[in-house]
Amino acid sequence: MIIMKSEATKEEITDVVKEIKKYGLKADVSRGEYRTVIGLVGDESKVDFSHFAVLPGVKEAVRVETPYKLVSKEYGKRFEDEGESRIISVGEIEIGGDEPIFIAGPCAIESKQQLFRIAEGVKKAGAHILRGGIFKPRSSAHSFQGLGANGREGAEEALNWLCEAGKQFEMPVITEVRGENQVDLISEYVDIMQIGARNMYDQDLLTSVARKKKPVLFKRHFGAGIEEFLSFAEYIAVEGNKDIILCERGIIPIGKGKNFTRYTLDLAAIPAIQKETYLPIIADPSHATGRRDLIFNMSCSAIAAGASGLMVETHYNPVEAMVDSQQMITPDELKEVIEVCRKISRLLVSAKKKM
Amino acid sequence: MIIMKSEATKEEITDVVKEIKKYGLKADVSRGEYRTVIGLVGDESKVDFSHFAVLPGVKEAVRVETPYKLVSKEYGKRFEDEGESRIISVGEIEIGGDEPIFIAGPCAIESKQQLFRIAEGVKKAGAHILRGGIFKPRSSAHSFQGLGANGREGAEEALNWLCEAGKQFEMPVITEVRGENQVDLISEYVDIMQIGARNMYDQDLLTSVARKKKPVLFKRHFGAGIEEFLSFAEYIAVEGNKDIILCERGIIPIGKGKNFTRYTLDLAAIPAIQKETYLPIIADPSHATGRRDLIFNMSCSAIAAGASGLMVETHYNPVEAMVDSQQMITPDELKEVIEVCRKISRLLVSAKKKM
Amino acid sequence: MIIMKSEATKEEITDVVKEIKKYGLKADVSRGEYRTVIGLVGDESKVDFSHFAVLPGVKEAVRVETPYKLVSKEYGKRFEDEGESRIISVGEIEIGGDEPIFIAGPCAIESKQQLFRIAEGVKKAGAHILRGGIFKPRSSAHSFQGLGANGREGAEEALNWLCEAGKQFEMPVITEVRGENQVDLISEYVDIMQIGARNMYDQDLLTSVARKKKPVLFKRHFGAGIEEFLSFAEYIAVEGNKDIILCERGIIPIGKGKNFTRYTLDLAAIPAIQKETYLPIIADPSHATGRRDLIFNMSCSAIAAGASGLMVETHYNPVEAMVDSQQMITPDELKEVIEVCRKISRLLVSAKKKM
Amino acid sequence: MIIMKSEATKEEITDVVKEIKKYGLKADVSRGEYRTVIGLVGDESKVDFSHFAVLPGVKEAVRVETPYKLVSKEYGKRFEDEGESRIISVGEIEIGGDEPIFIAGPCAIESKQQLFRIAEGVKKAGAHILRGGIFKPRSSAHSFQGLGANGREGAEEALNWLCEAGKQFEMPVITEVRGENQVDLISEYVDIMQIGARNMYDQDLLTSVARKKKPVLFKRHFGAGIEEFLSFAEYIAVEGNKDIILCERGIIPIGKGKNFTRYTLDLAAIPAIQKETYLPIIADPSHATGRRDLIFNMSCSAIAAGASGLMVETHYNPVEAMVDSQQMITPDELKEVIEVCRKISRLLVSAKKKM
Repeated sequence: MIIMKSEATKEEITDVVKEIKKYGLKADVSRGEYRTVIGLVGDESKVDFSHFAVLPGVKEAVRVETPYKLVSKEYGKRFEDEGESRIISVGEIEIGGDEPIFIAGPCAIESKQQLFRIAEGVKKAGAHILRGGIFKPRSSAHSFQGLGANGREGAEEALNWLCEAGKQFEMPVITEVRGENQVDLISEYVDIMQIGARNMYDQDLLTSVARKKKPVLFKRHFGAGIEEFLSFAEYIAVEGNKDIILCERGIIPIGKGKNFTRYTLDLAAIPAIQKETYLPIIADPSHATGRRDLIFNMSCSAIAAGASGLMVETHYNPVEAMVDSQQMITPDELKEVIEVCRKISRLLVSAKKKM
Repeated sequence: MIIMKSEATKEEITDVVKEIKKYGLKADVSRGEYRTVIGLVGDESKVDFSHFAVLPGVKEAVRVETPYKLVSKEYGKRFEDEGESRIISVGEIEIGGDEPIFIAGPCAIESKQQLFRIAEGVKKAGAHILRGGIFKPRSSAHSFQGLGANGREGAEEALNWLCEAGKQFEMPVITEVRGENQVDLISEYVDIMQIGARNMYDQDLLTSVARKKKPVLFKRHFGAGIEEFLSFAEYIAVEGNKDIILCERGIIPIGKGKNFTRYTLDLAAIPAIQKETYLPIIADPSHATGRRDLIFNMSCSAIAAGASGLMVETHYNPVEAMVDSQQMITPDELKEVIEVCRKISRLLVSAKKKM
Repeated sequence: MIIMKSEATKEEITDVVKEIKKYGLKADVSRGEYRTVIGLVGDESKVDFSHFAVLPGVKEAVRVETPYKLVSKEYGKRFEDEGESRIISVGEIEIGGDEPIFIAGPCAIESKQQLFRIAEGVKKAGAHILRGGIFKPRSSAHSFQGLGANGREGAEEALNWLCEAGKQFEMPVITEVRGENQVDLISEYVDIMQIGARNMYDQDLLTSVARKKKPVLFKRHFGAGIEEFLSFAEYIAVEGNKDIILCERGIIPIGKGKNFTRYTLDLAAIPAIQKETYLPIIADPSHATGRRDLIFNMSCSAIAAGASGLMVETHYNPVEAMVDSQQMITPDELKEVIEVCRKISRLLVSAKKKM
Repeated sequence: MIIMKSEATKEEITDVVKEIKKYGLKADVSRGEYRTVIGLVGDESKVDFSHFAVLPGVKEAVRVETPYKLVSKEYGKRFEDEGESRIISVGEIEIGGDEPIFIAGPCAIESKQQLFRIAEGVKKAGAHILRGGIFKPRSSAHSFQGLGANGREGAEEALNWLCEAGKQFEMPVITEVRGENQVDLISEYVDIMQIGARNMYDQDLLTSVARKKKPVLFKRHFGAGIEEFLSFAEYIAVEGNKDIILCERGIIPIGKGKNFTRYTLDLAAIPAIQKETYLPIIADPSHATGRRDLIFNMSCSAIAAGASGLMVETHYNPVEAMVDSQQMITPDELKEVIEVCRKISRLLVSAKKKM
């Protein structure tokens, strides 16, 4: 990456970008409050950095070796104010700041009535963002696949409900994009586009979602190491979109015998990732545990690990949900989760200030 | 599933299909040499099978509990001649019979010259099918992504070369489809469409590839259990396409310290899967091990485990390959692999006959 | 298990035990405040429970199917007051109650001076129990193996220091027992005997440690599922010793690329295990993460998950520690950990009371 | 390690050993046909190798960085004839040569009659070595634990039968040692001492078994990486015992849903390990798969991967076995396994000669 002097001119920046292009690479220009940093997109192994170091306006030219360059802490430190973490704004909500953010709603939207009743409940409970699944492809080809499976009409109807519910209850909305063909449609309706765990490795989807320039909720694949997770987040960043909210949602369990949790929530990954990147990271205890009776503890645990928020599946009557009924909590339970999590978060913030 | 009497009429079959639709389910009609079997696509938990058992022409009505119904051994036994395994024909090549089939070629097509030289080499070595990657998205956003990354033109040029090479050296051709947007294009050119490990869970892609009615090479995801692997193969089968070639290519390694192989080739999955389904299964020792010096042994080992064939990355000069150079073998080495594998396969076939 | 009536006589209990022995099984008699429960040790599949149900003094006779019978919640509910969790007393310390317990000290005892200085530090920081390793077998045969490797004399000297430090700073002491040959020696000195993760499967060691009738800290193996963990804890319980403190210390990480944490701390296992057993469970963030900079967050996170305490490696100058130097925290850092953890624990306790 | 000149004298060797001891290290002196190599046991990071290089009789002084020095290929190459693999002789049987060796017998010895009948069967089938378990601690504290659980008498009786059966049917015998307390007893009776997967990490057991100077069958732990496996084998080698037969027996399966095999047999580990060490490696398809119907294929597969032999559980009537009945094969099935495996092995040997 090329760190420009604070007094560098536009022309000097343009010249550096031109030089980068000569190597067949692309440039990622990040303008921070005090200086501008230019990242090199592509294989920089043959780049002569000493040549860049002496160009006018350049303060420093550094080779970055990790496969995640543009999302790395090292890169972020140069253009972000504090460098510690990026705050992503969605309407009036700020993700990545001192206050944890709660995303809640049903796993799958089943009807307008169901969605609105849940939306009202989660808003009252203190949630900030409304989630609702449209496309719900399942492990078995023989199960309910979400309203989106009824073709474009079914999808649009559900998306309209989601937007309306968001407006009525004053919450930005989020839904998952399952394939490139859905990107245009969904981006028209929602505030945050979610890339699910199973699609983490789908570079084409990542690229086309990134280009919509909306915030992206990016879930870790259940078989991905941390390095891979960040390397694929980089696919979003190289499109010039750094509004990426990472999400830990559990990795494949190991060990013989009955699994007591659906996945293994890897909470140590949260502070570990925060040492590597400036992107905020939240947790999804619902999919990770698959158990309603563990949500309270694992929500508290994730916030205590340092998560910037939670995504929690909520339903007024969990047993009648068509998808994931065994992992839903009620709005009343959500309220309790949010209250305790907020208190834990404040304990951490004040402890951090002392350190 | 509904097993029809051998003398059942077309009308009787149609009536059964109508009854199935009344439940909101779809019907999969498989006509075998001796009888017709009708699978129920969808959630059959509320179906009253005793009602079906007494319909005219019905011999038997059985509930199938596994999430993989249409690809299950139990289902196959009813309409396949032997029920043991399905033979999939691609041109004059038969996959799933007594003779193992070898798919070889470069990981990524880099140029016409490169592809033709390799195609000639693998043909001489005894390979049956030519592979060549067009779209090669990589773990790092900063590496070479295949000729397909140069837009539709780059992709079409490479696909044309692949077809030409296939014709010139008399081999059917195969390439990987990485996203729904590529399905139409690629299906025009190739004989077999490959769904890679990272896309195993992408139901939309599976569905749209299946509808092309061409044979599909379906790779197991590196984090997938056997049950999941077969449950997602079912997504292809419910579209009426049972020409599915399964492929074991290694699962995530566990254990601390340096990994000596890229993935863990799960060879016991091969005979285990053969007890569950009639679909043929092959192995990919190249991606599984990531090591040229292990290909010979692991090829022999996969065939001894019962694999119906192998997919092996080949290059005349491995070190100059732009992708996966450390796991390529030369055409000469491939020849040795094929010869020994054939002998092992014959040993197994004659041992089986004695049992 | 056989649940006796509250008014059952000693003779009636003895008669039931005799009947159990006729089946070649052993009996585990647990006297609770209100009633006595008798567990069957051994394979009870051929036992005729209807026969037991009509014996004098018997209230109920129930077959227990899990491989962990004597440590199961179901069994505990019958003889423990609340049945929710067992409180294990070590001196004046209570493990399993509302207050979290902190075990701290060096990974390996290196000298008397080192141990005493650390003991003083952790006591001031608020720790309750002092740990110190005597036998430290390592992954490499070529590294420092602990003072115990210097034969019985070395071990006894270190054990004497540990006891003295415990007395001087008023903390019970704990050390790990690595093999059957060490059981007699170590049990003379310490208040709690630790069975490490690598020995979780060593039934002979479990049995001989259990027979010392001292509290046992029992760590989960890094490859063990929850069912296995509890099934092996059962080996201690069948010896009549139910003072078992479980400890989650991380499982094998999956995923490719660099590991950012040494193991994967499976915090959801904590509440999941608490639904299965009445035994208390603590966490060891030091071995799980292997990273000093993650200890604070993962300690808070473990307590928020519901852990009854923590085991934290501590050293006044981490860099000079001969073993695990990269995962030690200082007494000052421990103080901060303990303070915040206590506050989080109180938040949970008061939230639970409201539920 | 220190490589001595071929003409080095005894005194020169002694002097080098003395120098090594000055560093607080131990010396491992390996006399090969052509030269003597001296390994340094312990942490050699502070050793000044240039100082050794100039001592009389020294040809070369090299620092070895891996945690497995004495079992490494690099070390073996210096004193073994070919360096490729070590041949371990047990009576007239040679393990590690061109011919695969078959170890067979019951999982647990149940009675003299049972053992002798099986011994006769496996001998006729072509097996070379007789196995039989004495101590069979199980996952559940409530199951049959082997005759060794009946105290020393039970163990000795079973060991006597094993020896007798070995003599009568002319096969060396092997049994597993489960704890240090059993080492003296078992070493008096058997030809090969087995260290099971669950004890792989038990350094004290490894050391005391190694000191008996008998060949050791050393099984890979189901959660161990290759590097760890070899690092713990090193614990045996540093005691001067290099007659170590490695054994791959399956690692923990990953992936959700039903497990179709008990463990994941990691066959690529076999050739990978053969590149790292000169020690022979065999496979145990019985414990790895846990399925009788997969033994034939996985035996062939292991030999094709390059294994020097197999360990296969055998019983004349699998269903009546008290332990592991679902994974036993009959002597007739074993005969077929051995015959086909031998043919596969010969194919590999002749292919190797051509390369």
